[in-house]
Amino acid sequence: VAPLITLTTDFGTADPYVAEMKGVLAQLGPADLRVFDLSHELPAFDVQAAALFLRAAVPRFPAQTVHVVVVDPGVGSERAPIVVWLKDQWLVGPDNRVFGYLYDGSERVYTVDPARAVQAPLSGTFHGRDLFAPVAARLAAGVPVTELAAPCEKYQHMVFPMVELTPDTLIGRVIHIDRFGNLITNITHSVLRGFLQDGSERSAQVFLGERQVHGLVHHYAEVKPGEALALIGSSQLLEVSIREGSAADKLGAQLGKTVRVQRG
Amino acid sequence: VAPLITLTTDFGTADPYVAEMKGVLAQLGPADLRVFDLSHELPAFDVQAAALFLRAAVPRFPAQTVHVVVVDPGVGSERAPIVVWLKDQWLVGPDNRVFGYLYDGSERVYTVDPARAVQAPLSGTFHGRDLFAPVAARLAAGVPVTELAAPCEKYQHMVFPMVELTPDTLIGRVIHIDRFGNLITNITHSVLRGFLQDGSERSAQVFLGERQVHGLVHHYAEVKPGEALALIGSSQLLEVSIREGSAADKLGAQLGKTVRVQRG
Amino acid sequence: VAPLITLTTDFGTADPYVAEMKGVLAQLGPADLRVFDLSHELPAFDVQAAALFLRAAVPRFPAQTVHVVVVDPGVGSERAPIVVWLKDQWLVGPDNRVFGYLYDGSERVYTVDPARAVQAPLSGTFHGRDLFAPVAARLAAGVPVTELAAPCEKYQHMVFPMVELTPDTLIGRVIHIDRFGNLITNITHSVLRGFLQDGSERSAQVFLGERQVHGLVHHYAEVKPGEALALIGSSQLLEVSIREGSAADKLGAQLGKTVRVQRG
Repeated sequence: VAPLITLTTDFGTADPYVAEMKGVLAQLGPADLRVFDLSHELPAFDVQAAALFLRAAVPRFPAQTVHVVVVDPGVGSERAPIVVWLKDQWLVGPDNRVFGYLYDGSERVYTVDPARAVQAPLSGTFHGRDLFAPVAARLAAGVPVTELAAPCEKYQHMVFPMVELTPDTLIGRVIHIDRFGNLITNITHSVLRGFLQDGSERSAQVFLGERQVHGLVHHYAEVKPGEALALIGSSQLLEVSIREGSAADKLGAQLGKTVRVQRG
Repeated sequence: VAPLITLTTDFGTADPYVAEMKGVLAQLGPADLRVFDLSHELPAFDVQAAALFLRAAVPRFPAQTVHVVVVDPGVGSERAPIVVWLKDQWLVGPDNRVFGYLYDGSERVYTVDPARAVQAPLSGTFHGRDLFAPVAARLAAGVPVTELAAPCEKYQHMVFPMVELTPDTLIGRVIHIDRFGNLITNITHSVLRGFLQDGSERSAQVFLGERQVHGLVHHYAEVKPGEALALIGSSQLLEVSIREGSAADKLGAQLGKTVRVQRG
Repeated sequence: VAPLITLTTDFGTADPYVAEMKGVLAQLGPADLRVFDLSHELPAFDVQAAALFLRAAVPRFPAQTVHVVVVDPGVGSERAPIVVWLKDQWLVGPDNRVFGYLYDGSERVYTVDPARAVQAPLSGTFHGRDLFAPVAARLAAGVPVTELAAPCEKYQHMVFPMVELTPDTLIGRVIHIDRFGNLITNITHSVLRGFLQDGSERSAQVFLGERQVHGLVHHYAEVKPGEALALIGSSQLLEVSIREGSAADKLGAQLGKTVRVQRG
């Protein structure tokens, strides 16, 4: 299999930063290296948004993929550069919780030693190019991680934002709004199933703020165009949407808005 | 030749949807698969804009290319997932007319059978990841289409928007405005040639609304910077442009505006 | 090594132009061609911005890379299409100074002869697809440049914007503002070192307009969040930044704003 490195940043592409990283990957990587852009449009410095993005994307990739992630408000400070081995894939980036939603206890985390990992002097502002890309290129080329980094016991964790649970009600919040205006919440399918013990998802009632929406449904097509609905979205999170419309625009909802589920 | 899959969506890249599809392609595709992004910035749910995009892009690609297209307002409804074999290339996407401008009567259309095409249960909202990407990966790996889909006789068509023709006048409309503000019309080069039977394109008169512009010209440089002109653009459609400027901004034109051609 | 072509344009990706170029590259390029997007979000028609972008990105790439650049306000006019051989890499694009910041006297420049380089008739408006992409594909496939182009002695140059130097003061200007609001100046590290003859970068004083900022520092973390600082950025240019904030927003600076350095 041709080696594969993916790139996920908050750099945009109007500046040369992503291009410089690709040059380093081509320069130092294996001869048949493939590079896939995942995103360069993550919100600047937003570690939690990046963590949510990676939670959805990384598990889809095959073994041996090397993911380079640069959403790094702390570049040039004391935060460590790390490499993570998780479910047969490599993650490379800053130790700032960006990988936190992927950790499941099976991860093995290494602190990169710049003196061993790179030959050029390290810039103070662009570790993506000068540290993470060289490390990723070498991992993709089969260099053992122990030549670049040392095992590390202590690293940043991040807990998936928790819901509130009462005997009758499950309360979550909107944690992401996608391009289509879908309101994605922190209510996971497994939490929801636990709350609806009899499995009657169909009869659950869902409220965005005080407004009840249709659902849970399985498909947009179960409601009429323009109507609001709730379903389990593609990342196994409860979403509030409008069929063929933007729930964010039409329902005026923002990040942090409460979403409430009651048994039917 | 290394297998090639292209991606065309209205997903943007701030959300993880494109990344998830790339993961599935890498997971299920051939070992040396190449993935080219065509666009993720198509207007949301705009099937006609996507069809116009594909009309320009797809014919440039070599035989055996697999194009995955996800502009899909009807996901989760009854619209069928299809695979199309057209001029030695594969098209994979929803049967919602998005491929309509490419059809020329030689296409062979197949309806995907999810039960045969994918192993995982199909999500109700993300067929790009759960159905179209796996189908494309398998086609790129050489799996016969008949293992994934069944021939289908009835599918959605879309006619290229027609012009109005009188003995003296050809009337078209602006159907796309590009990033540079060029006004692209539904007047094809062949229709224009038919109208100007003596071949005197140089003496044709072109009007945007009531305003006459220079042309037809062959090159922007035939007029002065800032002047309006008409020419046959790179997609063989009549365009109204301003040299080194935006016709959309300077002439105030919008989608649907009439463009009129008269013989010289 | 699998051949590599990079693409840098001001096309955006909502229009089909980049996709059409990729189709041509796949059609005419070698069987295992890799294509890396560098940027399609350069400001429209801004040759200087593109030159600055390439100055940072191109040197990172390995020998034999073919860079196609289409920022081309003069398409269809008399400006020549060129191929440049520079430090073992190929540059393909219009002769409009876009490669000017890369030239160091070692470049060998060739004028493309469309009659030899391409078989199809050349469009008047889209040389990226009809001329530059075919030339790049053939160079990547190992076709000798002399089959496509002829050596050329006279081509467009561009001088990096100069600073003003007095005995006590070095005055530069903001020439680029990046996505994070960093203000990037025309003061190169080598010019700064020449000015600060004793090497005391640490004691230099830096002013944006009349406002003094911290620095020179080496890392953002040397100041508190929200404070303004100056450092040598990743492209070896003096930058004014705000730690964890946007200097462009908070300091109200625009392109052309003066940045002044005084010895400590």
